[in-house]
Amino acid sequence: MTLTLDQARAAIRGTFEAGGEAGFKPLSAIVLDAGGNVLAFERQDGSSPGKFAIAHGKAYGAVMLGMPSSALMARAEKQPYFVAALNGAYGGAVIPVPGGILIKDGDAVIGALGVTGDTSDNDVDAGMKGLSAAGLTGEA
Amino acid sequence: MTLTLDQARAAIRGTFEAGGEAGFKPLSAIVLDAGGNVLAFERQDGSSPGKFAIAHGKAYGAVMLGMPSSALMARAEKQPYFVAALNGAYGGAVIPVPGGILIKDGDAVIGALGVTGDTSDNDVDAGMKGLSAAGLTGEA
Amino acid sequence: MTLTLDQARAAIRGTFEAGGEAGFKPLSAIVLDAGGNVLAFERQDGSSPGKFAIAHGKAYGAVMLGMPSSALMARAEKQPYFVAALNGAYGGAVIPVPGGILIKDGDAVIGALGVTGDTSDNDVDAGMKGLSAAGLTGEA
Amino acid sequence: MTLTLDQARAAIRGTFEAGGEAGFKPLSAIVLDAGGNVLAFERQDGSSPGKFAIAHGKAYGAVMLGMPSSALMARAEKQPYFVAALNGAYGGAVIPVPGGILIKDGDAVIGALGVTGDTSDNDVDAGMKGLSAAGLTGEA
Repeated sequence: MTLTLDQARAAIRGTFEAGGEAGFKPLSAIVLDAGGNVLAFERQDGSSPGKFAIAHGKAYGAVMLGMPSSALMARAEKQPYFVAALNGAYGGAVIPVPGGILIKDGDAVIGALGVTGDTSDNDVDAGMKGLSAAGLTGEA
Repeated sequence: MTLTLDQARAAIRGTFEAGGEAGFKPLSAIVLDAGGNVLAFERQDGSSPGKFAIAHGKAYGAVMLGMPSSALMARAEKQPYFVAALNGAYGGAVIPVPGGILIKDGDAVIGALGVTGDTSDNDVDAGMKGLSAAGLTGEA
Repeated sequence: MTLTLDQARAAIRGTFEAGGEAGFKPLSAIVLDAGGNVLAFERQDGSSPGKFAIAHGKAYGAVMLGMPSSALMARAEKQPYFVAALNGAYGGAVIPVPGGILIKDGDAVIGALGVTGDTSDNDVDAGMKGLSAAGLTGEA
Repeated sequence: MTLTLDQARAAIRGTFEAGGEAGFKPLSAIVLDAGGNVLAFERQDGSSPGKFAIAHGKAYGAVMLGMPSSALMARAEKQPYFVAALNGAYGGAVIPVPGGILIKDGDAVIGALGVTGDTSDNDVDAGMKGLSAAGLTGEA
Protein backbone atom coordinates (compact mmCIF):
# COMPACT_ATOMS: atom_id res chain seq x y z
CA MET A 1 0.00 0.00 0.00
CA THR A 2 1.21 3.48 -0.84
CA LEU A 3 0.17 6.35 1.43
CA THR A 4 -2.03 8.92 -0.28
CA LEU A 5 -2.18 12.63 0.41
CA ASP A 6 -5.75 12.16 1.66
CA GLN A 7 -4.51 9.67 4.25
CA ALA A 8 -1.68 11.95 5.26
CA ARG A 9 -4.09 14.87 5.70
CA ALA A 10 -6.47 12.71 7.72
CA ALA A 11 -3.64 11.59 10.00
CA ILE A 12 -2.45 15.15 10.60
CA ARG A 13 -5.99 16.46 11.22
CA GLY A 14 -6.73 13.55 13.53
CA THR A 15 -3.55 14.29 15.45
CA PHE A 16 -4.48 17.95 15.88
CA GLU A 17 -8.04 17.07 16.94
CA ALA A 18 -6.79 14.60 19.51
CA GLY A 19 -4.37 17.20 20.83
CA GLY A 20 -7.10 19.82 20.99
CA GLU A 21 -9.45 17.56 22.91
CA ALA A 22 -6.72 16.64 25.38
CA GLY A 23 -5.74 20.27 25.90
CA PHE A 24 -2.23 19.81 24.55
CA LYS A 25 -0.08 22.71 23.35
CA PRO A 26 -0.17 23.54 19.63
CA LEU A 27 1.21 20.61 17.64
CA SER A 28 3.07 20.12 14.39
CA ALA A 29 2.82 16.95 12.37
CA ILE A 30 4.51 15.52 9.28
CA VAL A 31 3.88 12.46 7.16
CA LEU A 32 6.77 10.84 5.27
CA ASP A 33 6.35 8.12 2.67
CA ALA A 34 8.10 4.73 2.72
CA GLY A 35 11.20 6.26 1.16
CA GLY A 36 11.52 9.00 3.77
CA ASN A 37 10.27 11.80 1.50
CA VAL A 38 7.84 14.47 2.74
CA LEU A 39 4.19 14.02 1.82
CA ALA A 40 2.53 16.62 4.08
CA PHE A 41 3.31 18.87 7.04
CA GLU A 42 1.31 21.33 9.13
CA ARG A 43 2.26 23.55 12.07
CA GLN A 44 -0.54 24.82 14.32
CA ASP A 45 -0.84 28.50 15.17
CA GLY A 46 1.03 29.40 18.33
CA SER A 47 3.88 26.93 17.74
CA SER A 48 7.50 28.02 17.82
CA PRO A 49 8.84 28.52 14.28
CA GLY A 50 11.34 25.67 14.11
CA LYS A 51 8.95 22.76 14.44
CA PHE A 52 9.42 21.37 10.93
CA ALA A 53 12.91 20.09 11.69
CA ILE A 54 11.79 18.36 14.89
CA ALA A 55 8.74 16.68 13.41
CA HIS A 56 10.82 15.68 10.38
CA GLY A 57 13.69 14.33 12.46
CA LYS A 58 11.43 12.13 14.55
CA ALA A 59 9.71 10.64 11.50
CA TYR A 60 12.82 10.42 9.32
CA GLY A 61 14.86 8.39 11.78
CA ALA A 62 11.89 6.07 12.23
CA VAL A 63 11.34 5.31 8.57
CA MET A 64 15.02 5.18 7.59
CA LEU A 65 15.87 2.75 10.39
CA GLY A 66 12.57 0.88 10.48
CA MET A 67 11.88 1.53 14.16
CA PRO A 68 9.83 4.13 16.05
CA SER A 69 11.81 7.05 17.43
CA SER A 70 11.11 5.78 20.95
CA ALA A 71 13.34 2.80 20.13
CA LEU A 72 16.02 5.23 18.95
CA MET A 73 15.74 7.03 22.29
CA ALA A 74 16.22 3.73 24.14
CA ARG A 75 19.30 3.10 22.02
CA ALA A 76 20.57 6.63 22.65
CA GLU A 77 20.25 6.12 26.40
CA LYS A 78 22.55 3.08 26.14
CA GLN A 79 24.85 4.15 23.32
CA PRO A 80 24.73 7.93 22.88
CA TYR A 81 27.72 7.83 20.54
CA PHE A 82 25.83 5.49 18.19
CA VAL A 83 22.87 7.81 17.82
CA ALA A 84 25.21 10.78 17.44
CA ALA A 85 26.90 8.86 14.64
CA LEU A 86 23.56 8.06 13.00
CA ASN A 87 22.91 11.76 12.88
CA GLY A 88 26.13 12.25 11.00
CA ALA A 89 25.33 9.45 8.58
CA TYR A 90 21.87 10.88 7.87
CA GLY A 91 22.98 14.50 7.52
CA GLY A 92 21.81 15.59 10.96
CA ALA A 93 18.22 14.56 10.29
CA VAL A 94 17.50 12.16 13.16
CA ILE A 95 15.69 13.22 16.36
CA PRO A 96 15.75 10.29 18.81
CA VAL A 97 12.81 11.04 21.10
CA PRO A 98 9.26 9.64 21.03
CA GLY A 99 6.87 11.07 18.47
CA GLY A 100 8.21 9.40 15.34
CA ILE A 101 5.60 6.74 14.67
CA LEU A 102 5.90 4.04 12.00
CA ILE A 103 2.87 3.68 9.74
CA LYS A 104 2.46 0.01 8.92
CA ASP A 105 0.52 -2.16 6.48
CA GLY A 106 0.86 -5.55 8.11
CA ASP A 107 4.61 -6.02 8.55
CA ALA A 108 5.54 -3.45 5.93
CA VAL A 109 6.52 0.10 6.86
CA ILE A 110 4.66 2.41 4.47
CA GLY A 111 5.72 5.68 6.06
CA ALA A 112 5.99 7.56 9.32
CA LEU A 113 4.14 10.24 11.24
CA GLY A 114 6.19 12.74 13.22
CA VAL A 115 4.53 14.78 15.97
CA THR A 116 5.96 17.51 18.16
CA GLY A 117 4.72 20.37 20.35
CA ASP A 118 3.83 18.96 23.75
CA THR A 119 5.68 16.37 25.85
CA SER A 120 7.00 13.46 23.83
CA ASP A 121 4.48 11.13 25.47
CA ASN A 122 1.61 13.45 24.59
CA ASP A 123 2.94 13.81 21.05
CA VAL A 124 2.76 10.03 20.74
CA ASP A 125 -0.72 9.92 22.25
CA ALA A 126 -2.10 12.45 19.79
CA GLY A 127 -0.30 10.86 16.86
CA MET A 128 -1.58 7.35 17.56
CA LYS A 129 -5.12 8.70 17.81
CA GLY A 130 -4.62 10.64 14.61
CA LEU A 131 -3.50 7.55 12.71
CA SER A 132 -6.44 5.65 14.11
CA ALA A 133 -8.84 8.37 12.95
CA ALA A 134 -7.29 8.06 9.48
CA GLY A 135 -7.78 4.31 9.43
CA LEU A 136 -4.02 3.72 9.62
CA THR A 137 -1.96 1.51 11.92
CA GLY A 138 0.85 3.03 13.94
CA GLU A 139 3.79 1.61 15.87
CA ALA A 140 5.07 4.09 18.44
CA MET B 1 -0.81 40.32 9.85
CA THR B 2 0.53 36.88 10.67
CA LEU B 3 -0.35 34.01 8.35
CA THR B 4 -2.49 31.35 10.01
CA LEU B 5 -2.51 27.65 9.31
CA ASP B 6 -6.05 28.01 7.98
CA GLN B 7 -4.84 30.54 5.44
CA ALA B 8 -1.91 28.34 4.47
CA ARG B 9 -4.22 25.38 3.97
CA ALA B 10 -6.61 27.45 1.90
CA ALA B 11 -3.78 28.67 -0.30
CA ILE B 12 -2.48 25.15 -0.90
CA ARG B 13 -5.94 23.77 -1.61
CA GLY B 14 -6.72 26.65 -3.90
CA THR B 15 -3.48 26.03 -5.77
CA PHE B 16 -4.30 22.36 -6.23
CA GLU B 17 -7.84 23.14 -7.37
CA ALA B 18 -6.60 25.65 -9.90
CA GLY B 19 -4.07 23.13 -11.17
CA GLY B 20 -6.72 20.44 -11.41
CA GLU B 21 -9.08 22.68 -13.37
CA ALA B 22 -6.32 23.65 -15.78
CA GLY B 23 -5.25 20.06 -16.29
CA PHE B 24 -1.76 20.63 -14.87
CA LYS B 25 0.42 17.77 -13.65
CA PRO B 26 0.26 16.88 -9.94
CA LEU B 27 1.50 19.84 -7.89
CA SER B 28 3.29 20.35 -4.59
CA ALA B 29 2.89 23.50 -2.56
CA ILE B 30 4.47 24.97 0.55
CA VAL B 31 3.69 28.00 2.68
CA LEU B 32 6.48 29.67 4.63
CA ASP B 33 5.90 32.33 7.25
CA ALA B 34 7.55 35.76 7.36
CA GLY B 35 10.62 34.23 9.00
CA GLY B 36 11.11 31.65 6.27
CA ASN B 37 9.91 28.75 8.43
CA VAL B 38 7.59 26.03 7.15
CA LEU B 39 3.91 26.40 8.01
CA ALA B 40 2.39 23.78 5.72
CA PHE B 41 3.31 21.57 2.78
CA GLU B 42 1.45 19.07 0.62
CA ARG B 43 2.53 16.87 -2.31
CA GLN B 44 -0.19 15.56 -4.60
CA ASP B 45 -0.37 11.87 -5.47
CA GLY B 46 1.59 11.04 -8.60
CA SER B 47 4.34 13.61 -7.96
CA SER B 48 7.99 12.61 -7.97
CA PRO B 49 9.28 12.09 -4.42
CA GLY B 50 11.72 15.00 -4.21
CA LYS B 51 9.25 17.86 -4.55
CA PHE B 52 9.61 19.23 -1.03
CA ALA B 53 13.09 20.58 -1.72
CA ILE B 54 11.98 22.33 -4.91
CA ALA B 55 8.84 23.91 -3.49
CA HIS B 56 10.79 24.95 -0.41
CA GLY B 57 13.66 26.40 -2.39
CA LYS B 58 11.38 28.59 -4.51
CA ALA B 59 9.55 29.99 -1.49
CA TYR B 60 12.59 30.25 0.76
CA GLY B 61 14.60 32.33 -1.66
CA ALA B 62 11.60 34.60 -2.14
CA VAL B 63 10.95 35.32 1.51
CA MET B 64 14.60 35.48 2.57
CA LEU B 65 15.46 37.99 -0.16
CA GLY B 66 12.13 39.78 -0.29
CA MET B 67 11.52 39.22 -3.97
CA PRO B 68 9.60 36.60 -5.95
CA SER B 69 11.70 33.74 -7.30
CA SER B 70 11.05 35.03 -10.84
CA ALA B 71 13.16 38.06 -9.88
CA LEU B 72 15.86 35.72 -8.66
CA MET B 73 15.77 33.98 -12.04
CA ALA B 74 16.20 37.32 -13.80
CA ARG B 75 19.17 38.01 -11.56
CA ALA B 76 20.59 34.53 -12.25
CA GLU B 77 20.40 35.15 -15.99
CA LYS B 78 22.57 38.24 -15.55
CA GLN B 79 24.79 37.19 -12.67
CA PRO B 80 24.81 33.41 -12.25
CA TYR B 81 27.73 33.63 -9.82
CA PHE B 82 25.66 35.82 -7.53
CA VAL B 83 22.81 33.34 -7.30
CA ALA B 84 25.29 30.49 -6.87
CA ALA B 85 26.80 32.45 -3.99
CA LEU B 86 23.35 33.03 -2.47
CA ASN B 87 22.90 29.30 -2.52
CA GLY B 88 26.07 28.88 -0.54
CA ALA B 89 25.07 31.54 1.93
CA TYR B 90 21.63 30.01 2.43
CA GLY B 91 22.82 26.41 2.74
CA GLY B 92 21.77 25.39 -0.76
CA ALA B 93 18.15 26.26 -0.16
CA VAL B 94 17.41 28.75 -2.96
CA ILE B 95 15.74 27.68 -6.23
CA PRO B 96 15.77 30.66 -8.63
CA VAL B 97 12.92 29.83 -11.01
CA PRO B 98 9.33 31.11 -11.01
CA GLY B 99 6.91 29.58 -8.54
CA GLY B 100 8.13 31.23 -5.34
CA ILE B 101 5.44 33.83 -4.72
CA LEU B 102 5.59 36.51 -2.03
CA ILE B 103 2.50 36.77 0.18
CA LYS B 104 1.95 40.42 1.04
CA ASP B 105 -0.10 42.50 3.41
CA GLY B 106 0.18 45.92 1.83
CA ASP B 107 3.92 46.47 1.52
CA ALA B 108 4.82 43.91 4.14
CA VAL B 109 5.95 40.41 3.19
CA ILE B 110 4.10 38.03 5.49
CA GLY B 111 5.31 34.80 3.88
CA ALA B 112 5.70 32.96 0.61
CA LEU B 113 3.99 30.26 -1.37
CA GLY B 114 6.15 27.81 -3.33
CA VAL B 115 4.61 25.77 -6.12
CA THR B 116 6.18 23.07 -8.31
CA GLY B 117 5.07 20.21 -10.53
CA ASP B 118 4.24 21.66 -13.95
CA THR B 119 6.08 24.30 -15.98
CA SER B 120 7.27 27.23 -13.90
CA ASP B 121 4.70 29.49 -15.57
CA ASN B 122 1.88 27.10 -14.79
CA ASP B 123 3.15 26.73 -11.23
CA VAL B 124 2.84 30.52 -10.88
CA ASP B 125 -0.60 30.55 -12.46
CA ALA B 126 -1.96 27.93 -10.06
CA GLY B 127 -0.29 29.56 -7.06
CA MET B 128 -1.66 33.04 -7.79
CA LYS B 129 -5.16 31.59 -8.12
CA GLY B 130 -4.68 29.63 -4.92
CA LEU B 131 -3.67 32.75 -2.99
CA SER B 132 -6.64 34.58 -4.44
CA ALA B 133 -8.98 31.78 -3.35
CA ALA B 134 -7.52 32.09 0.14
CA GLY B 135 -8.13 35.84 0.22
CA LEU B 136 -4.40 36.54 0.12
CA THR B 137 -2.34 38.83 -2.09
CA GLY B 138 0.56 37.40 -4.06
CA GLU B 139 3.50 38.93 -5.91
CA ALA B 140 4.92 36.50 -8.47
CA MET C 1 5.56 -2.90 -8.18
CA THR C 2 8.50 -2.69 -5.80
CA LEU C 3 11.97 -3.40 -7.18
CA THR C 4 13.60 -6.47 -5.68
CA LEU C 5 17.27 -7.06 -5.05
CA ASP C 6 17.19 -9.84 -7.66
CA GLN C 7 15.91 -7.36 -10.24
CA ALA C 8 18.54 -4.82 -9.26
CA ARG C 9 21.29 -7.42 -9.57
CA ALA C 10 20.00 -8.53 -12.95
CA ALA C 11 19.95 -4.94 -14.19
CA ILE C 12 23.50 -4.30 -13.05
CA ARG C 13 24.80 -7.57 -14.49
CA GLY C 14 22.97 -6.95 -17.73
CA THR C 15 24.53 -3.50 -17.92
CA PHE C 16 28.02 -4.88 -17.40
CA GLU C 17 27.47 -7.63 -19.96
CA ALA C 18 26.25 -5.15 -22.54
CA GLY C 19 29.24 -2.95 -21.84
CA GLY C 20 31.61 -5.90 -22.15
CA GLU C 21 30.16 -6.99 -25.46
CA ALA C 22 30.38 -3.47 -26.84
CA GLY C 23 33.97 -3.08 -25.68
CA PHE C 24 33.16 -0.18 -23.33
CA LYS C 25 35.47 0.86 -20.51
CA PRO C 26 34.81 -0.64 -17.06
CA LEU C 27 31.40 0.48 -15.82
CA SER C 28 29.78 1.19 -12.47
CA ALA C 29 26.07 0.85 -11.92
CA ILE C 30 23.64 1.62 -9.12
CA VAL C 31 19.96 0.87 -8.58
CA LEU C 32 17.86 3.18 -6.40
CA ASP C 33 14.34 2.40 -5.24
CA ALA C 34 11.31 4.64 -5.79
CA GLY C 35 12.24 6.71 -2.72
CA GLY C 36 15.79 7.38 -3.89
CA ASN C 37 17.44 4.94 -1.48
CA VAL C 38 20.29 2.65 -2.57
CA LEU C 39 19.36 -0.96 -3.34
CA ALA C 40 22.55 -2.18 -5.04
CA PHE C 41 25.80 -0.88 -6.52
CA GLU C 42 28.80 -2.43 -8.24
CA ARG C 43 32.01 -0.99 -9.65
CA GLN C 44 33.92 -3.02 -12.22
CA ASP C 45 37.65 -3.68 -11.81
CA GLY C 46 39.75 -1.04 -13.48
CA SER C 47 37.37 1.84 -12.73
CA SER C 48 38.55 4.99 -11.02
CA PRO C 49 37.72 4.94 -7.30
CA GLY C 50 35.12 7.70 -7.16
CA LYS C 51 32.46 6.13 -9.37
CA PHE C 52 29.85 5.62 -6.65
CA ALA C 53 29.11 9.33 -6.40
CA ILE C 54 28.70 9.71 -10.16
CA ALA C 55 26.44 6.70 -10.64
CA HIS C 56 24.45 7.76 -7.59
CA GLY C 57 24.11 11.36 -8.72
CA LYS C 58 22.80 10.39 -12.14
CA ALA C 59 20.19 8.04 -10.68
CA TYR C 60 19.30 10.21 -7.69
CA GLY C 61 18.46 13.29 -9.70
CA ALA C 62 16.35 11.14 -12.03
CA VAL C 63 14.21 9.54 -9.36
CA MET C 64 13.86 12.63 -7.15
CA LEU C 65 12.74 14.79 -10.05
CA GLY C 66 10.92 12.13 -12.04
CA MET C 67 12.89 12.64 -15.26
CA PRO C 68 15.92 10.92 -16.76
CA SER C 69 19.24 12.67 -16.19
CA SER C 70 19.39 13.44 -19.92
CA ALA C 71 16.43 15.77 -19.36
CA LEU C 72 18.32 17.39 -16.50
CA MET C 73 21.25 17.94 -18.86
CA ALA C 74 18.94 19.60 -21.39
CA ARG C 75 17.67 21.84 -18.60
CA ALA C 76 21.22 22.58 -17.45
CA GLU C 77 22.17 23.68 -20.97
CA LYS C 78 19.35 26.24 -20.89
CA GLN C 79 19.36 27.21 -17.23
CA PRO C 80 22.66 26.28 -15.62
CA TYR C 81 21.78 28.26 -12.49
CA PHE C 82 18.66 26.14 -11.99
CA VAL C 83 20.55 22.86 -12.02
CA ALA C 84 23.24 24.35 -9.79
CA ALA C 85 20.46 25.28 -7.39
CA LEU C 86 18.97 21.78 -7.53
CA ASN C 87 22.32 20.48 -6.42
CA GLY C 88 22.17 22.73 -3.39
CA ALA C 89 18.63 21.68 -2.58
CA TYR C 90 19.55 17.99 -2.82
CA GLY C 91 22.79 18.23 -0.87
CA GLY C 92 25.08 18.10 -3.89
CA ALA C 93 23.70 14.76 -5.06
CA VAL C 94 22.55 15.52 -8.61
CA ILE C 95 24.68 14.74 -11.70
CA PRO C 96 22.92 16.17 -14.78
CA VAL C 97 24.38 14.10 -17.61
CA PRO C 98 22.90 11.06 -19.39
CA GLY C 99 23.14 7.72 -17.62
CA GLY C 100 20.46 8.20 -14.97
CA ILE C 101 17.64 6.06 -16.31
CA LEU C 102 14.15 5.91 -14.83
CA ILE C 103 12.81 2.42 -14.17
CA LYS C 104 9.09 2.43 -14.87
CA ASP C 105 6.08 0.21 -14.26
CA GLY C 106 3.58 1.68 -16.69
CA ASP C 107 3.49 5.37 -15.78
CA ALA C 108 4.90 4.88 -12.28
CA VAL C 109 8.56 5.46 -11.52
CA ILE C 110 9.70 2.50 -9.40
CA GLY C 111 13.38 3.42 -9.22
CA ALA C 112 16.36 4.45 -11.29
CA LEU C 113 19.49 2.90 -12.73
CA GLY C 114 22.65 5.00 -12.80
CA VAL C 115 25.51 4.04 -15.10
CA THR C 116 28.94 5.62 -15.50
CA GLY C 117 32.33 4.70 -16.87
CA ASP C 118 32.33 5.27 -20.63
CA THR C 119 30.83 8.16 -22.59
CA SER C 120 27.41 9.24 -21.35
CA ASP C 121 25.80 7.88 -24.51
CA ASN C 122 27.48 4.52 -24.09
CA ASP C 123 26.51 4.49 -20.40
CA VAL C 124 22.89 4.89 -21.49
CA ASP C 125 23.22 2.24 -24.16
CA ALA C 126 24.55 -0.34 -21.71
CA GLY C 127 22.02 0.61 -19.05
CA MET C 128 19.03 0.30 -21.33
CA LYS C 129 20.22 -3.14 -22.46
CA GLY C 130 20.79 -4.11 -18.85
CA LEU C 131 17.27 -3.15 -17.86
CA SER C 132 15.93 -5.05 -20.83
CA ALA C 133 17.89 -8.15 -19.83
CA ALA C 134 16.35 -7.84 -16.36
CA GLY C 135 12.85 -7.62 -17.77
CA LEU C 136 12.53 -3.99 -16.70
CA THR C 137 11.46 -0.90 -18.63
CA GLY C 138 13.75 2.10 -18.77
CA GLU C 139 13.28 5.73 -19.79
CA ALA C 140 16.60 7.31 -20.65
CA MET D 1 46.50 -7.65 -3.26
CA THR D 2 43.70 -5.51 -4.60
CA LEU D 3 40.11 -6.58 -3.92
CA THR D 4 38.21 -7.51 -7.06
CA LEU D 5 34.52 -7.08 -7.73
CA ASP D 6 34.20 -10.87 -7.83
CA GLN D 7 35.61 -11.08 -4.32
CA ALA D 8 33.33 -8.32 -3.10
CA ARG D 9 30.31 -10.08 -4.58
CA ALA D 10 31.34 -13.37 -3.02
CA ALA D 11 31.74 -11.73 0.40
CA ILE D 12 28.32 -10.08 0.19
CA ARG D 13 26.62 -13.28 -1.00
CA GLY D 14 28.38 -15.32 1.68
CA THR D 15 27.23 -12.84 4.30
CA PHE D 16 23.61 -13.07 3.13
CA GLU D 17 23.76 -16.89 3.00
CA ALA D 18 25.16 -17.06 6.52
CA GLY D 19 22.45 -14.69 7.73
CA GLY D 20 19.77 -16.72 6.00
CA GLU D 21 20.97 -19.99 7.52
CA ALA D 22 21.10 -18.43 10.98
CA GLY D 23 17.62 -16.95 10.64
CA PHE D 24 18.83 -13.36 10.91
CA LYS D 25 16.74 -10.39 9.76
CA PRO D 26 17.34 -9.11 6.19
CA LEU D 27 20.89 -7.81 5.93
CA SER D 28 22.70 -5.14 3.96
CA ALA D 29 26.38 -5.39 3.13
CA ILE D 30 28.99 -3.16 1.56
CA VAL D 31 32.56 -3.69 0.46
CA LEU D 32 34.96 -0.76 0.43
CA ASP D 33 38.41 -0.88 -1.11
CA ALA D 34 41.69 0.04 0.59
CA GLY D 35 41.03 3.71 -0.15
CA GLY D 36 37.61 3.69 1.50
CA ASN D 37 35.73 3.86 -1.80
CA VAL D 38 32.61 1.79 -2.53
CA LEU D 39 33.16 -1.37 -4.58
CA ALA D 40 29.79 -3.08 -4.06
CA PHE D 41 26.64 -2.84 -1.95
CA GLU D 42 23.44 -4.82 -1.67
CA ARG D 43 20.33 -4.42 0.51
CA GLN D 44 18.13 -7.48 0.99
CA ASP D 45 14.38 -7.25 0.41
CA GLY D 46 12.52 -6.37 3.58
CA SER D 47 15.24 -4.07 4.95
CA SER D 48 14.46 -0.53 6.04
CA PRO D 49 15.40 1.96 3.31
CA GLY D 50 18.26 3.73 5.07
CA LYS D 51 20.68 0.81 5.36
CA PHE D 52 23.29 2.11 2.95
CA ALA D 53 24.43 4.83 5.34
CA ILE D 54 24.78 2.41 8.25
CA ALA D 55 26.65 -0.29 6.36
CA HIS D 56 28.88 2.37 4.82
CA GLY D 57 29.57 4.07 8.13
CA LYS D 58 30.67 0.85 9.80
CA ALA D 59 33.04 -0.06 6.98
CA TYR D 60 34.28 3.46 6.32
CA GLY D 61 35.36 4.10 9.89
CA ALA D 62 37.14 0.76 9.90
CA VAL D 63 39.19 1.26 6.76
CA MET D 64 39.89 4.98 7.33
CA LEU D 65 41.20 4.36 10.84
CA GLY D 66 42.66 0.91 10.26
CA MET D 67 40.69 -0.81 12.99
CA PRO D 68 37.42 -2.77 13.05
CA SER D 69 34.37 -0.77 14.08
CA SER D 70 34.18 -2.81 17.28
CA ALA D 71 37.42 -1.10 18.31
CA LEU D 72 35.84 2.25 17.50
CA MET D 73 32.95 1.32 19.79
CA ALA D 74 35.36 0.50 22.59
CA ARG D 75 36.98 3.88 22.05
CA ALA D 76 33.57 5.58 22.01
CA GLU D 77 32.69 4.02 25.37
CA LYS D 78 35.81 5.61 26.88
CA GLN D 79 36.03 8.82 24.89
CA PRO D 80 32.71 9.67 23.27
CA TYR D 81 33.95 13.16 22.38
CA PHE D 82 36.79 11.65 20.36
CA VAL D 83 34.44 9.55 18.23
CA ALA D 84 32.08 12.51 17.86
CA ALA D 85 35.06 14.51 16.63
CA LEU D 86 36.02 11.74 14.18
CA ASN D 87 32.54 11.98 12.80
CA GLY D 88 33.03 15.66 12.18
CA ALA D 89 36.42 15.09 10.58
CA TYR D 90 35.05 12.39 8.28
CA GLY D 91 31.91 14.26 7.24
CA GLY D 92 29.56 12.28 9.48
CA ALA D 93 30.48 8.99 7.87
CA VAL D 94 31.67 6.90 10.84
CA ILE D 95 29.36 4.45 12.65
CA PRO D 96 31.19 3.11 15.72
CA VAL D 97 29.40 -0.18 16.40
CA PRO D 98 30.43 -3.73 15.43
CA GLY D 99 29.84 -4.84 11.87
CA GLY D 100 32.65 -2.92 10.15
CA ILE D 101 35.19 -5.67 9.45
CA LEU D 102 38.69 -5.08 8.10
CA ILE D 103 39.64 -7.23 5.11
CA LYS D 104 43.32 -8.12 5.40
CA ASP D 105 46.08 -9.59 3.29
CA GLY D 106 48.65 -10.51 5.92
CA ASP D 107 49.17 -7.28 7.83
CA ALA D 108 47.84 -5.06 5.07
CA VAL D 109 44.31 -3.69 5.12
CA ILE D 110 42.90 -4.19 1.62
CA GLY D 111 39.37 -3.04 2.36
CA ALA D 112 36.44 -3.45 4.71
CA LEU D 113 33.11 -5.21 4.82
CA GLY D 114 30.21 -3.43 6.51
CA VAL D 115 27.17 -5.43 7.62
CA THR D 116 23.91 -4.23 9.19
CA GLY D 117 20.38 -5.48 9.71
CA ASP D 118 20.37 -7.70 12.80
CA THR D 119 22.12 -7.19 16.15
CA SER D 120 25.67 -5.90 15.82
CA ASP D 121 27.00 -9.26 17.03
CA ASN D 122 24.99 -11.14 14.45
CA ASP D 123 26.06 -8.70 11.77
CA VAL D 124 29.66 -9.55 12.62
CA ASP D 125 28.94 -13.28 12.69
CA ALA D 126 27.40 -13.25 9.21
CA GLY D 127 30.11 -10.96 7.84
CA MET D 128 33.00 -13.11 9.09
CA LYS D 129 31.39 -16.19 7.54
CA GLY D 130 30.83 -14.31 4.33
CA LEU D 131 34.47 -13.28 4.10
CA SER D 132 35.48 -16.85 4.82
CA ALA D 133 33.22 -18.13 2.05
CA ALA D 134 34.91 -15.64 -0.29
CA GLY D 135 38.37 -16.87 0.68
CA LEU D 136 39.14 -13.59 2.44
CA THR D 137 40.47 -12.86 5.91
CA GLY D 138 38.52 -10.59 8.23
CA GLU D 139 39.36 -8.79 11.47
CA ALA D 140 36.20 -7.91 13.39
